[in-house]
Amino acid sequence: MHLQDATWTDADAVETDLAVLPVGSTEQHGPHAPLGTDVLTAEAVADAGVERYDGEVVVAPAVPVGIAEEHRHFTGTLWVEEDTFRDYVRETVASLAHHGWDRVVVVNGHGGNIAALREVCARISRHDDAYAVPFTWFDAADAPDMGHGGPVETSLLQHAHSDLVREDRLDEAAADGADGWGEWVSGVNLAYDSAEFSENGTVGDPREGGADRGEELLDDASEALSTLLSRVAERDLSDRR
Amino acid sequence: MHLQDATWTDADAVETDLAVLPVGSTEQHGPHAPLGTDVLTAEAVADAGVERYDGEVVVAPAVPVGIAEEHRHFTGTLWVEEDTFRDYVRETVASLAHHGWDRVVVVNGHGGNIAALREVCARISRHDDAYAVPFTWFDAADAPDMGHGGPVETSLLQHAHSDLVREDRLDEAAADGADGWGEWVSGVNLAYDSAEFSENGTVGDPREGGADRGEELLDDASEALSTLLSRVAERDLSDRR
Amino acid sequence: MHLQDATWTDADAVETDLAVLPVGSTEQHGPHAPLGTDVLTAEAVADAGVERYDGEVVVAPAVPVGIAEEHRHFTGTLWVEEDTFRDYVRETVASLAHHGWDRVVVVNGHGGNIAALREVCARISRHDDAYAVPFTWFDAADAPDMGHGGPVETSLLQHAHSDLVREDRLDEAAADGADGWGEWVSGVNLAYDSAEFSENGTVGDPREGGADRGEELLDDASEALSTLLSRVAERDLSDRR
Amino acid sequence: MHLQDATWTDADAVETDLAVLPVGSTEQHGPHAPLGTDVLTAEAVADAGVERYDGEVVVAPAVPVGIAEEHRHFTGTLWVEEDTFRDYVRETVASLAHHGWDRVVVVNGHGGNIAALREVCARISRHDDAYAVPFTWFDAADAPDMGHGGPVETSLLQHAHSDLVREDRLDEAAADGADGWGEWVSGVNLAYDSAEFSENGTVGDPREGGADRGEELLDDASEALSTLLSRVAERDLSDRR
Amino acid sequence: MHLQDATWTDADAVETDLAVLPVGSTEQHGPHAPLGTDVLTAEAVADAGVERYDGEVVVAPAVPVGIAEEHRHFTGTLWVEEDTFRDYVRETVASLAHHGWDRVVVVNGHGGNIAALREVCARISRHDDAYAVPFTWFDAADAPDMGHGGPVETSLLQHAHSDLVREDRLDEAAADGADGWGEWVSGVNLAYDSAEFSENGTVGDPREGGADRGEELLDDASEALSTLLSRVAERDLSDRR
Amino acid sequence: MHLQDATWTDADAVETDLAVLPVGSTEQHGPHAPLGTDVLTAEAVADAGVERYDGEVVVAPAVPVGIAEEHRHFTGTLWVEEDTFRDYVRETVASLAHHGWDRVVVVNGHGGNIAALREVCARISRHDDAYAVPFTWFDAADAPDMGHGGPVETSLLQHAHSDLVREDRLDEAAADGADGWGEWVSGVNLAYDSAEFSENGTVGDPREGGADRGEELLDDASEALSTLLSRVAERDLSDRR
Repeated sequence: MHLQDATWTDADAVETDLAVLPVGSTEQHGPHAPLGTDVLTAEAVADAGVERYDGEVVVAPAVPVGIAEEHRHFTGTLWVEEDTFRDYVRETVASLAHHGWDRVVVVNGHGGNIAALREVCARISRHDDAYAVPFTWFDAADAPDMGHGGPVETSLLQHAHSDLVREDRLDEAAADGADGWGEWVSGVNLAYDSAEFSENGTVGDPREGGADRGEELLDDASEALSTLLSRVAERDLSDRR
Repeated sequence: MHLQDATWTDADAVETDLAVLPVGSTEQHGPHAPLGTDVLTAEAVADAGVERYDGEVVVAPAVPVGIAEEHRHFTGTLWVEEDTFRDYVRETVASLAHHGWDRVVVVNGHGGNIAALREVCARISRHDDAYAVPFTWFDAADAPDMGHGGPVETSLLQHAHSDLVREDRLDEAAADGADGWGEWVSGVNLAYDSAEFSENGTVGDPREGGADRGEELLDDASEALSTLLSRVAERDLSDRR
Repeated sequence: MHLQDATWTDADAVETDLAVLPVGSTEQHGPHAPLGTDVLTAEAVADAGVERYDGEVVVAPAVPVGIAEEHRHFTGTLWVEEDTFRDYVRETVASLAHHGWDRVVVVNGHGGNIAALREVCARISRHDDAYAVPFTWFDAADAPDMGHGGPVETSLLQHAHSDLVREDRLDEAAADGADGWGEWVSGVNLAYDSAEFSENGTVGDPREGGADRGEELLDDASEALSTLLSRVAERDLSDRR
Repeated sequence: MHLQDATWTDADAVETDLAVLPVGSTEQHGPHAPLGTDVLTAEAVADAGVERYDGEVVVAPAVPVGIAEEHRHFTGTLWVEEDTFRDYVRETVASLAHHGWDRVVVVNGHGGNIAALREVCARISRHDDAYAVPFTWFDAADAPDMGHGGPVETSLLQHAHSDLVREDRLDEAAADGADGWGEWVSGVNLAYDSAEFSENGTVGDPREGGADRGEELLDDASEALSTLLSRVAERDLSDRR
Repeated sequence: MHLQDATWTDADAVETDLAVLPVGSTEQHGPHAPLGTDVLTAEAVADAGVERYDGEVVVAPAVPVGIAEEHRHFTGTLWVEEDTFRDYVRETVASLAHHGWDRVVVVNGHGGNIAALREVCARISRHDDAYAVPFTWFDAADAPDMGHGGPVETSLLQHAHSDLVREDRLDEAAADGADGWGEWVSGVNLAYDSAEFSENGTVGDPREGGADRGEELLDDASEALSTLLSRVAERDLSDRR
Repeated sequence: MHLQDATWTDADAVETDLAVLPVGSTEQHGPHAPLGTDVLTAEAVADAGVERYDGEVVVAPAVPVGIAEEHRHFTGTLWVEEDTFRDYVRETVASLAHHGWDRVVVVNGHGGNIAALREVCARISRHDDAYAVPFTWFDAADAPDMGHGGPVETSLLQHAHSDLVREDRLDEAAADGADGWGEWVSGVNLAYDSAEFSENGTVGDPREGGADRGEELLDDASEALSTLLSRVAERDLSDRR
């Protein structure tokens, strides 16, 4: 059930303690993919995973702006501070739990959110009245070539939002993008901003995928999410402190 | 231009310093209107106003969860703390301004956000690198009978999202709703929560409107927003400190 | 009982759970009225209301500096940040409640404090061990022509602190003042600072009142406060969460 | 010039960069002295010192509630958290400095405020646009027998506010009071609260003074403050960072 | 140069802009390794790397307590909140930079600190007057079998602090330890605390190493740190914002 | 028992509720004494006092960086903000208390930490699950000539860390040092930074002591600490709120 479309009486009638909170980012994804890529993919995976799961799950509206200062050199990138993001997620989860939906999977579409989500979900699970885990879809799917605006994200969009991928700019995206993320020495990434290593913000070759790959990725990710929901639903939370 | 659908290169090509940030809330609106009412109406007004405005305006993704603790007794209501909401809005506006879109109209669909938006927009305008004003659509339209989930909001939805209004529950909504907001004495509202004065969360009679009224309201509100955008675009900001 | 003048043993002997906390501001009120207008009027109303009320009420010392950055262009205006003001009020109320005075009316004399007081009193009432409501005296009295340093405030001072009104500057105050507060378009005030629309900080014609009007205003306001105290005293707080 | 009584035009006409901010506390002072002792004495010293000083000084309204949790077991004691107190003082000083009064002496009447004032005045002086120092009157006067509600404070009140001292309770105050402050071992005070070592909150024998002693104390303290104002006025602040 | 042992005049004579800040944790490392393992190893690597580097480097004292709430079920584990840890590191780095040592490598010995250090070093590098990168020694050395109190950390201690490894408890450590870290499903670790998956806190078999392996690890890690210092020293920081 | 060297199983076997947390500062101590003076002396006193005490005491690792902005003009001085320092100490104490060591003596070696430690230990003792007191060794020993890098600290180092005192710079230290701390008028120190009154940071003549004096000081201080530990161990904490 999508909360935004439901009335409170509908929501009140649902019998579950499972909720999903999609979390994305509004940030550059090269010249070919939309700024909303991370929200759109998180929502697509959340919907498909919940659909596949055998049971009721409440779906909260997606958090549209996350941790993306690293992309600020590219126009249109929006971001908030890490603490603000964590507070926004933590309190949204707390209000879900207030209604009894206290097992929450945060479905994340953005690499830059991962560490902050792990931190805040640990805090929620240890100190608040909820258990929450962050699920980042491309960490669960078969996506070794993730990059940024690369084959993985582009494929998923080609499948789920084909109108938003600028196919005529894929060559340009590949030409001026980077092969890898960051600038590494001794296990340390010396770069903090994507503009330091990618001319147009892309990492990876977005031509190396396609709608079929996108369908597989969505399938993988939603299967993984469905499995996770089962495990979270069954988990014994009685002595987690 | 909707940022979520645009690429960064598209966004980079826009020549404007005007942006709109829709802000709503996910909260009860009676048994007949969806929890997402305030986001949906804010987005509808933002889109219509920007469409009507003669010039380019960047549209950021809507903030979906706001200040709504007062409705927490009704299932599905989500909220964050006032400070978190202000920070989230302030930093999102700052990132818009980072790209040169430093005249920002926050298009708000929720009464509970008004005071916090005025506070944070004043802070932005005095201390940050942007000028921002909050525009609450029902304060600009002809809506003396606003209520909550009452004729004004219900009408707008009947026009803009007719599938989301449960027409068959309008009588029930009216029957168990309240006539007015709050519990007043000596100019003071003694009640802090809607459950203190409305049995089902509704205030006002949602049957006293309809899609036609909704069309008029949207027309009024978008015209008002378009006028505001013109004034904000022209405003001399050189010595606002 | 005024706490400042009482000993702790006197305070300990009082049998009540009602307290009043006057809150003002130190800020410009035109060339004719003192910077302390909002504190002085809040104290006058608090005293008269408590006097009129049939029962014991503890009166805390007035908070002298509030939210007044909007008047900073006029010399002598003092202000703190909104969060600081809210914390100062919240914790002062908490210490009143610590002694059993957990039904608190915050008697406010400044328009700029209203939103912040509503926010913090809601927080206190929902989350702390007290019930608090803000009472702004000119919202309770018959004061449609409120303005700023206008006929309403000037009249009250002419009655209660006639030595502090510079009668010989009233014409000047009226001549260079503004007719209305702010600069409005589409239901939005584009101005954040009083210097944007009033040359000398005055809004309204302070000559349109007098000591008689002031006496009536004080009478109205104190009656309203007394009524409010009765209602707050009787209010059932058992399930306010 | 007392800001509260002045108009902004009066304040604007003052030619000085010196301001005084009285700071007190509302807290128990035994069965014989009022809860407002620390505010009243701070105001008395501030007024007398400014009067004695040869030059113009702006006097801000007194901060009435400070750091006094240690007295919370005695009815009527009010307090805020240390951070709130520091913020309130810091921002009030910043608004004084905004008008050019950027050499500020904080005239303090409460021992519990001393450490926090030193911390915040250092922060102001190093990081803000003002130079501020805290002056605690009984550290400047000849007051080795300070105590709490003891001979020093009681004497000053007997001179400056004789109506507020309950002479008929002095014996009782002495009988159930403590001889010294705290419970010391190895240079450490093991007690955090005054109720741990004084039955009625008094420390020292309030009978060992009188109005004459109070006059001397006020004389000493105001002379010391006047001297301090001269030094602060002359101080070279050009390279304090 | 170790700051703790140097005088300020010695420190003043150093010509470098490079500093190293060791950061550890005080937390359980099984029944065989000391609670200080992460501090001791971070210091050992920092010293060896600085020694190997051809140039002057200032070494700050180690931060002894970090982010370790996940080990709180095991006696002796100390921790602070993530925000406190980030602030402590950020401000310590800022004071290093104040003296001109504005290229800082944070040498980290604890996995739980990694995400927080990346976040705070990004913030420092983007917003403060310093460039900082976190270096986690076991991410730079050949340590695929890292675990927790496993062969990697135990080996390093056997080489660098052999007296602190309880050789007679290695069998016990291995017997009741875990094979892997966490409880994974769909790319998500469902466990937040080490007690959920390891009986005695150990992960990995500490017998599978030894002093020789420790020497190699220290050699690898210090070589990597030395290389990193060279790169950080040469890095062009002119346009990092 | 030093936590850093102990395993968690060792720590678990200790039967005590007493812990000691050494707290110092890394800051200038003249041209002759090391930047780590305040950590080294705090650790020396903590160790000697715990040794002398008849009973078990857990010793936490020392906090190396404290409140020292006042010495920032001298190279090598490190500092954090007061709030950060208080949080770091408070949370470290809370984690000690989590393991049952809830009677904590903070052994302090730095004058600049005193006020902040008193504030945070009061907060801990009133609001957290621990009782904590700060012990500053030179306030307990016979040290009227404390100064800064003066005879007291220099003597203790000459006894406990003789290799770290630059004997050949003692004359220089004395020559360019100050006789007293600060710049006083009317009981107020007008100076915030040591560079305002001491050319080389020294206050007092470091030649007026020696290793013998240091031994006496350590003896005095450790005896005082041992006595304090006994008193803290016996203290009735049942009604400290």
